[in-house]
Parts: sequence; structure tokens; C-alpha cells
Amino acid sequence: MYQQIKHQINQIISLTDTEFEQFLAFTEIRKLKKKELILREGEICRAAWFINYGSLRYFYLVNGEEHTGQFFFENSWFTDFNSFLSSQPSKLYVEALEKTEIILISRASIEKLHTQIPKFERFSRLMAENAFKGLRNKTEMLANQSPEERYLNLVKERPKLIQRVAQRYIASYLGIKPQSLSRIRRRIFDNS
Amino acid sequence: MYQQIKHQINQIISLTDTEFEQFLAFTEIRKLKKKELILREGEICRAAWFINYGSLRYFYLVNGEEHTGQFFFENSWFTDFNSFLSSQPSKLYVEALEKTEIILISRASIEKLHTQIPKFERFSRLMAENAFKGLRNKTEMLANQSPEERYLNLVKERPKLIQRVAQRYIASYLGIKPQSLSRIRRRIFDNS
Repeated sequence: MYQQIKHQINQIISLTDTEFEQFLAFTEIRKLKKKELILREGEICRAAWFINYGSLRYFYLVNGEEHTGQFFFENSWFTDFNSFLSSQPSKLYVEALEKTEIILISRASIEKLHTQIPKFERFSRLMAENAFKGLRNKTEMLANQSPEERYLNLVKERPKLIQRVAQRYIASYLGIKPQSLSRIRRRIFDNS
Repeated sequence: MYQQIKHQINQIISLTDTEFEQFLAFTEIRKLKKKELILREGEICRAAWFINYGSLRYFYLVNGEEHTGQFFFENSWFTDFNSFLSSQPSKLYVEALEKTEIILISRASIEKLHTQIPKFERFSRLMAENAFKGLRNKTEMLANQSPEERYLNLVKERPKLIQRVAQRYIASYLGIKPQSLSRIRRRIFDNS
């Protein structure tokens, strides 16, 4: 149950067994049903989640319409960093796309960890840097790529996502209409 | 010359005078002329810059057209984090919008600082978190606000930017055509 998170953390900082136990004492396991929300717009996000299995999606509601921001799969961390860092109400909804198990750690606990085990500062720094990279890539994609390029790059770089995520969410994530995505897919498959 | 950067860093971590001297030994001052580029697409960004005075803008070139990403003013840090973190070629151009003085520190030096003065991990963590927050706000703005809302929020939240930056760059930053921005401005001023 904790092998994956241990491996993930140890890729970044090496923890002694005692330190890892100290870390674990701050965590809790949460099981989510498909479609279950773990964060809603207006709530303050007070935790970060490590995905043991399953997947999460975050989206905004804009005039009643869902705008998908990103997808996260097993062995990765996610939080609404904006709300988490500022303690401001979130603008996001975060839902489980399938049966999902997460390991949760609260912001307060992470702050304690920074004091008790200072090398966690390094861990948190790298997490923040990764969050930044992910978001920058997403922003660049929307700003600089045509819908077809966006889809082709996604197929190339994140094939797992194409297999596991419903097409309407992928369309929303790519910032294109579901009908346009269907057209793009037909064009690609007809040419291949 | 170093009062501002000292103040900025000490807001985040307290450095002794010796530690601050140790930090300064890694830095160098660079003066930029208006329009001078400090980073071009294809180059690897190997430094972070603190702005003593003046301002920077970063942009992408998409089919020969500039897409402005963000503006930075005195007392703030900037780097192309994506290229800086991954040592991959940058996709950005960074230019001085006016006569600008920066304090430069290389990535290699920052890594040495993390080892020599571990509390710099905390500094870098907070810088990464801030970079993330800035980018998330930008992304949310483009995804969820109408052009008029974008401009009104900018006027409210960053009035200095409106005064100091040419309107064509502001339009590009807001993701709207210069003519649309002129129309929006006329509408606002006619109603006020």
C-alpha cells in the first residue's frame, strides 16, 4: 500500500525508514468511487493527494460548462496548488475518473514535515517545479498549437491518457469541441 | 545596489550577513538597453534574474507573430523555468521593455547554494510556488474570462502595468486583438 509512495519520494530525497514512518504518520488513505469529487469550487484545498491507483481529473465550471484542466494517474501527486498555497477558495472541481485510492497529506502536516525533516523542503520544491512545468506545457499547447497538433502530441506523449479517458474529456482538455475532435480522429485514421 | 534583493530574500528566509555575502559572490550585475534580448528561442536558460529597475517581457514567436506571456517589474525574479529546470532549449524570447538592470545568478550557483546554505531550498520552493501561482492565474484568465473581464481585472489588479506597458503588448498578453482592446477601452471610458 505504501511501496509506491515510498519509491516516488525516494527518487527525490532519500529518507531513512524512521523518517518515512514519520511521514506516513501524517497521511491517511482515502478510497474514491468513480465520479466522486474530492474538491469543489469554493472549498479551500487543504491537502495534497498521491494516487495509489486510479485517476483524477480537475475541471472548472464556466457558465455551467466543464472546462477540463488536467488528468493525473497512479504514482503521481496532485493538489489545487493555488488554493493550497494561498488558502483561498478553490476554483476547481476534482473528481475520480474511475475507482481510485489516494494517500492524503494535509498542508499543515507538510509544513510540520518541513520543520521536522528539512529535506522535505527539497521535495516540495521539486513538486512545485513539476507543477509549474506541467502547467507551462499545457499553456503553451493551448496558445501555440493547432487543435490537430494538440491531439497528435497527446497521442505521442501520453498514450495511456488516450486509452483511459473518455473522448469528451480529452476534447475539453485540448480546448476543442467534441465534434472537432471526432473529425480530427477520422482525418488521422483515414490517412494512416 | 543590493538593498532590494537583500530585502526580497529576507522576506522569505533570514540570511546572516555572511550568508548574504556568500550569495552575492555568485551573482553578477547586467545592464540591458531597451529592447535588448536576454534570452532567445533555442537557447538554454541557465540563469535566474532579479530586476533591480526596469521591466522584462517574455513572448513566443508563433508563425512570426509575438505572443506575449508575461511582464515583470523591479523587485521581482524571472527565469524561463521550463528551460532552466530541464536544460532544454527555451521556446521564449525575453526582452527588456525599458532600460533595465538585473542581478543574475546561474542555475549551477543556485544548486551550490542549496548545498552550502540549505535554507535556500525553501527560497527556491517558494519561488517555484509563486511561478506556479502566476502561471495558473494567467491560464485561468485566458480560459475563463471574456476579453473585457480580462482587461478590467488587469486595470484593477496591476495598474502599474497599464501605465508602463505599450497597449499592443497588453493586448497580446490578454489574448485579444489590438483593435478589440481599443474598442474595450472606448466602451469603458465612455461609460465612466
